[in-house]
Parts: sequence; C-alpha cells; structure tokens
Amino acid sequence: MTEDSWHPVSRSRAYELVVDQIEDQILEGRLKVGDRLPGERELAGRLEVSRAAVREAIRTLEAQGVVRSAVGSGPEAGTVVSAMPSAALTRLLRLHVALANFPLPDVVEARVMLERYSARLASEHAGPDLLDALREPLDAMDDDDLDRVAFNDLDTAFHIAIAEAGGNRLVADMTTAIRDAVRRSVLASFELLGDRWPDIVTRLRAEHRAIYDAVAAGDGESAARLVEEHIRGAAGWLPGWKG
Amino acid sequence: MTEDSWHPVSRSRAYELVVDQIEDQILEGRLKVGDRLPGERELAGRLEVSRAAVREAIRTLEAQGVVRSAVGSGPEAGTVVSAMPSAALTRLLRLHVALANFPLPDVVEARVMLERYSARLASEHAGPDLLDALREPLDAMDDDDLDRVAFNDLDTAFHIAIAEAGGNRLVADMTTAIRDAVRRSVLASFELLGDRWPDIVTRLRAEHRAIYDAVAAGDGESAARLVEEHIRGAAGWLPGWKG
Repeated sequence: MTEDSWHPVSRSRAYELVVDQIEDQILEGRLKVGDRLPGERELAGRLEVSRAAVREAIRTLEAQGVVRSAVGSGPEAGTVVSAMPSAALTRLLRLHVALANFPLPDVVEARVMLERYSARLASEHAGPDLLDALREPLDAMDDDDLDRVAFNDLDTAFHIAIAEAGGNRLVADMTTAIRDAVRRSVLASFELLGDRWPDIVTRLRAEHRAIYDAVAAGDGESAARLVEEHIRGAAGWLPGWKG
Repeated sequence: MTEDSWHPVSRSRAYELVVDQIEDQILEGRLKVGDRLPGERELAGRLEVSRAAVREAIRTLEAQGVVRSAVGSGPEAGTVVSAMPSAALTRLLRLHVALANFPLPDVVEARVMLERYSARLASEHAGPDLLDALREPLDAMDDDDLDRVAFNDLDTAFHIAIAEAGGNRLVADMTTAIRDAVRRSVLASFELLGDRWPDIVTRLRAEHRAIYDAVAAGDGESAARLVEEHIRGAAGWLPGWKG
C-alpha cells in the first residue's frame, strides 16, 4: 500500500468518510487481512481529520469485525485488518431480515432455494464425520424432556449443520443467517401450539430423519425435495408465523 | 416497549454491550422501524454506562443503517430505528466477500444458485415495465465507444435488474451484494484481455440478449440455463479472475 492511496477527506461527518476510505482500500485489494493500518495520529494527518474521527471510524469498523485492535507498543500493536467473521455477517443479515420486514413468502422461498442447494451438496459430500455432525442434533432432539427453546435450538443446529456440510462457505453463511433470523419467530410459534406440541415434535423428528437418510444415502434429489417440503410445511402449520 | 427491557451492562467495552442490547430488542421485536430510542442521558442511566458509551453505540448503529438521528428538540428529534437500507447489507456482504477470501468456485456456485432462481422468477413476472428495465442496460451496452469500466457497470446493472425483476427482495439483496462484490475483479480481468476485448464484448452482448429473450418469452427454464452458462462461461475465460 502506498501513501498516495490516502487522501484528505472534506465533509462534515468525518468519521464516515474515514470508514469509506478504509473500506474502499479493502475492496480494491490494497488492504488485506493481517495488514496494519497507519497509527491514529498518522492517519488523522494524512486524511486531514481529527484523531477523534479516526478513533470513531476504527471503532465502527471493529464493531463490524472488519478490523481488530491489538494493545501495546511492540510490532504486534495497532489496528489490523481482520478476516471478518461469519458471525458479523450473520448478525447484520439477521438485523436486516428483522428490520426490512421481508414478506414471509420471500423468506420461505429464499430458505427453500438455499437449503435445497445445501442438501444436494451435502448428499454429494457425505463422509462419516459429516454424517456424525448431522446426527448429533437429531439424537438430542429425541429427548422427550426438552423444552421448546432447547428443541428449537437443536432444530436450528440441524439446518445449520446441513448448510455447513454442503461445503460452500458463502452459501452456508447466508443459510445460517436466515435460519438464525427466523429462530425467534419459530419459537414464538412453538409457544402458541399448546397441546398440539407433542404431535409437532413427532412430525419434525420424522422429517429431519428422512432428510438425514437421503443425505446419508447420497440421494441429493430426494434430500432437496424433502428439505423443501419440510420448510414449506412448517410455514403452513406454524401458528402466527411471520418469517 | 417497557422500561424493564433495559438492564444495566457490566463489561469493559461498554459501547459494544449497548449495541448488543439495542440489537437484541430489535431481534425480539420490541423495537420496530420508526420507534424512538430513549435519550442519551436516560439510556446511559438505565444501562449504567457513560453517555460517551451510548453515543459511541449510536454512531456504530448509524454507520450500519440500523438507526438514524434526527436533530432538533421537537417531537421529531432523537434517534429512530430505521428500515435498514439494502445498501448497508450489500456493503457489508461485499466487504465479507472481499475479506473472507471465499474460494472462486464457492462464489461462482452461489451466483449460479441465486441468479438461476432470479431468472426463473423474472420470467414468470415479466411485464412491460420490467422488460423495459432489463433492456435499458442491454441497449446501452451496444455502444461501441464504451470503455471497459462503463461496460462492466452496465453488465452489473443487467444482472441486478434481473434480480430485482424476480420480485424476491431478500434474494435480490443477496444477488446484488455478490455481483457487486465481484465487480472490481471482473473489471481487472477485462483490462487483462488486451485485443481479445472486442470478441468478448460481442459474446457478452449475445449472451445477455439470449437471457433477455428467454425472460421476455416467459421461458423460465431456458432463462435459468442460459444465465448459468453465462456465469460459468465467464468464470472460465476471464483471465486472472479470482472471484
């Protein structure tokens, strides 16, 4: 990275422009994971903003997982570009789904698209370790003493495990974010089920096992179809489900 | 929203915990788009943090498009939960794709999945306005005087128009973010093409027109197949293309 790539900012909300410049350098490939940003004083000087603006920009980027700060004064100190964790993307996508108020059919269709794709890929890649990871939440869900919160968490874990098993990191991140975004509203629906709950548990266990069996058999087409029926089915019977 | 939903925070990076609490309230549905946050002083008191920590948290959330501040002292003033713009998600997904260094095949497969889906939906919904919006970048791309930057921007615009035309907002946002994330690396490859450029332009124009024709004819299966071939083809011939 050359010094030329930093140029003074000139608008009122200085910290936003500092954020923009740092992001631009990342998107242009001039700043990579592990690269260190210039120090606060130096950056403030080059961009012609206050040190407070630089500090605020760094904190904003830290909160998004784009950079992390290392304390101290040695060669390890300073602000370093970090490999943005999937969790940061997942959190933002969850907020986006919560705030953007996407229509339920949009969310259901997006899940069908993502999870069909993941189920098919998982079927192709199915090795023993992968199948163990898928079976773990299913076995745990067989416990009749689980409350609805614990059952829902395991349900989420199974869907995420399929996405991870598909082996496409980008698709897995999107799938996880959306499944996670609907976690609370699925739970709210579980609470509304009253005494229909035991029947629903039986049904969900059976559907998950059927998906697992198709993946284990390497039958991608069936796995994709079963996961689609499972998602569409739930959207149909969950009371008050709003995505 | 009740006062009970705010409780004091107790860790060292106070502003992060303020951010977490506000996000939790959004995810739980207690804070909705248009709701006003308590004032800085009040929030600091309830959460037992400094006003500086609240201010920092608000700025972090503003930078992510989660809240916006309205100035003044009337009933319109204060910090309001905003409908997080798609642009905020797109920007973060672009950064994530840039930093997470997803393998090229993952990005190509994710695009194939998303754009096949969008092309099929666009074919089903194709009305006159939608078709006009799709044709606009294509007509502009017929100009032989376009430089590679302008050509690439129109190429991006065509893919985004298909995603928008599909009518699923969530899928469109994901598609836009990923196409946008690869914009710079596609452009870098265009620059490497040297005197093969005119042939590539001819090829891309023809492929885009064929996709358009299938969408206009309402032939979703062909539209999906053509968009898949177009994406896989480009990944094959773009020199130095790294996703």
